[in-house]
Amino acid sequence: MRPAESAAFVVLSGGVGGGKFTAGLNDLLGPGELAVVVNTGDDFDHLGLRICPDLDSVTYALAGLGDEKRGWGRDEETWNCMQTLGMLGAEDWFALGDKDLGLHLFRTHGLRNGSTLAEVSSEICRRLGIQAHVIPMTEAPVQTILDTDQGMLSFQDYFVKSRCEPRVRALSYRGAARTDLHLNARAALRSRNLKAIFIAPSNPFLSIDPILALPGVRELIASRGLPVIAISPLIQGQALKGPLSKMLESLGVPDTAAGIAQHYKGLVNGIVIDVSDQAQAQDLEIAACITPTRMTGQASRRALAQAALEFAMGRVNA
Amino acid sequence: MRPAESAAFVVLSGGVGGGKFTAGLNDLLGPGELAVVVNTGDDFDHLGLRICPDLDSVTYALAGLGDEKRGWGRDEETWNCMQTLGMLGAEDWFALGDKDLGLHLFRTHGLRNGSTLAEVSSEICRRLGIQAHVIPMTEAPVQTILDTDQGMLSFQDYFVKSRCEPRVRALSYRGAARTDLHLNARAALRSRNLKAIFIAPSNPFLSIDPILALPGVRELIASRGLPVIAISPLIQGQALKGPLSKMLESLGVPDTAAGIAQHYKGLVNGIVIDVSDQAQAQDLEIAACITPTRMTGQASRRALAQAALEFAMGRVNA
Repeated sequence: MRPAESAAFVVLSGGVGGGKFTAGLNDLLGPGELAVVVNTGDDFDHLGLRICPDLDSVTYALAGLGDEKRGWGRDEETWNCMQTLGMLGAEDWFALGDKDLGLHLFRTHGLRNGSTLAEVSSEICRRLGIQAHVIPMTEAPVQTILDTDQGMLSFQDYFVKSRCEPRVRALSYRGAARTDLHLNARAALRSRNLKAIFIAPSNPFLSIDPILALPGVRELIASRGLPVIAISPLIQGQALKGPLSKMLESLGVPDTAAGIAQHYKGLVNGIVIDVSDQAQAQDLEIAACITPTRMTGQASRRALAQAALEFAMGRVNA
Repeated sequence: MRPAESAAFVVLSGGVGGGKFTAGLNDLLGPGELAVVVNTGDDFDHLGLRICPDLDSVTYALAGLGDEKRGWGRDEETWNCMQTLGMLGAEDWFALGDKDLGLHLFRTHGLRNGSTLAEVSSEICRRLGIQAHVIPMTEAPVQTILDTDQGMLSFQDYFVKSRCEPRVRALSYRGAARTDLHLNARAALRSRNLKAIFIAPSNPFLSIDPILALPGVRELIASRGLPVIAISPLIQGQALKGPLSKMLESLGVPDTAAGIAQHYKGLVNGIVIDVSDQAQAQDLEIAACITPTRMTGQASRRALAQAALEFAMGRVNA
């Protein structure tokens, strides 16, 4: 497999939507051509296990092990460990599936034995037959903090415990300014073979901004002078998963392709938007690719990735 | 519930057979009357989890959560976490059930957060509604080591990895001489209400001797001048579970009630043997109680415990 430093494409990604797009794109590419830089700002410890929600979602999507219907976690999952934890009165607000748990145990044990998160992630990918580079954005602890009308909340407190109900006023990425983009991610973005960079259809605030908050990332991307294409996570103003629509509203960002493009201004030079948002293309200051963006299975994931790839390579007239 | 220091009965116990006997005995007693001192010489770390096989077997038996047929682990267990670990190439020689895992996670997390093993065990018992005191023999690491024709092996290496095939020449209890019987166990054995001490039908070498190897335990038991009753783990020379028969042979101990009684000489003053071994009673130098000792369900567990209890209390003529 081609090493990360000669990757042809890089995706910056969050979890669910990002995983789906990444899996679609990887289907179209050769072994090692794709490097995915994954948000770790939502990572946390739970019952002594290191949980990396976005890395796991991307990994499961790439390995074809994800639950398509639920949208997160493993397919054909069971919840028997949780049952015991419930009996024992342990914290059970975070859904730990039995199959999923195997990955958490493997990773946590690896980290405790001195492996880095990137090393463990690579080993997991190798074992699961994944032929893309899945790279955590950094090894250092970075934590996304939401400033809400109910106080400062970590992502899990906001997302799982508070069910996205608090109104978000601002976000910060604790620790981001003091760390660096992962060496392997840097190598991929510096690859001489690099043809384009994609920003996955993930939540900009929760999934992409933590990566962009690492020192020098925006500059490194800009310095390449390559197509940088965002896939809008919105369809008719709504995100398919998660609290994005509510956050856009409370943060004062328009829930349109233009809002997303504005958010990524100076970074991206093209945006992929859903066919149902076709009318919004005229409000954009950057090139747009209009295509179905709803990913309901392998075929639609591939089709979206194909459209984004062709758009990036200039074969589609924006 | 009556505290451990006013326990009426103490059982020294290993895992499976000990758990069954303990559960039978507890059925006959009031809340807190029973204190079980459990072997921890087989405890080990696996994938970052602290595993305490005997504590778990006793706990599951007392809570009615054990798998009666398999003889260990949880009832109606699933193995999905193991499946993932297998996919990832992790060590999977130790069978980690999904339900079982919840207990390991809970305990490991508790220990990492500064709780003692006894505290975690008490909390587990409380949550599971167990009204006996389940006490680890010590908080300190003690490890049963088997000197075999294939070298020195830890219990798990001998039992699980080598499937009890190596020939055992001797055993030692690493760390035992440098530690103490658990304070709570000591309190139970010193209880002013104590009426009898039982040695569960467990493997003497693997399960009971580690407890007896702790400094002062034999002396403390002897000092009480109370009935000390062993329940023979043999039925017609065979143990129902585990490698005891093979070990007796290779260690030169007769596979009879007399062999077991000889092994516990100076410690016990009565032994409970199976009806099928009735003829062996005449070879004993101590009092014997002859009763069915095969525990196949709640009724036979209770009946054995009842016989042992009556024997201990002198109501049965030996």
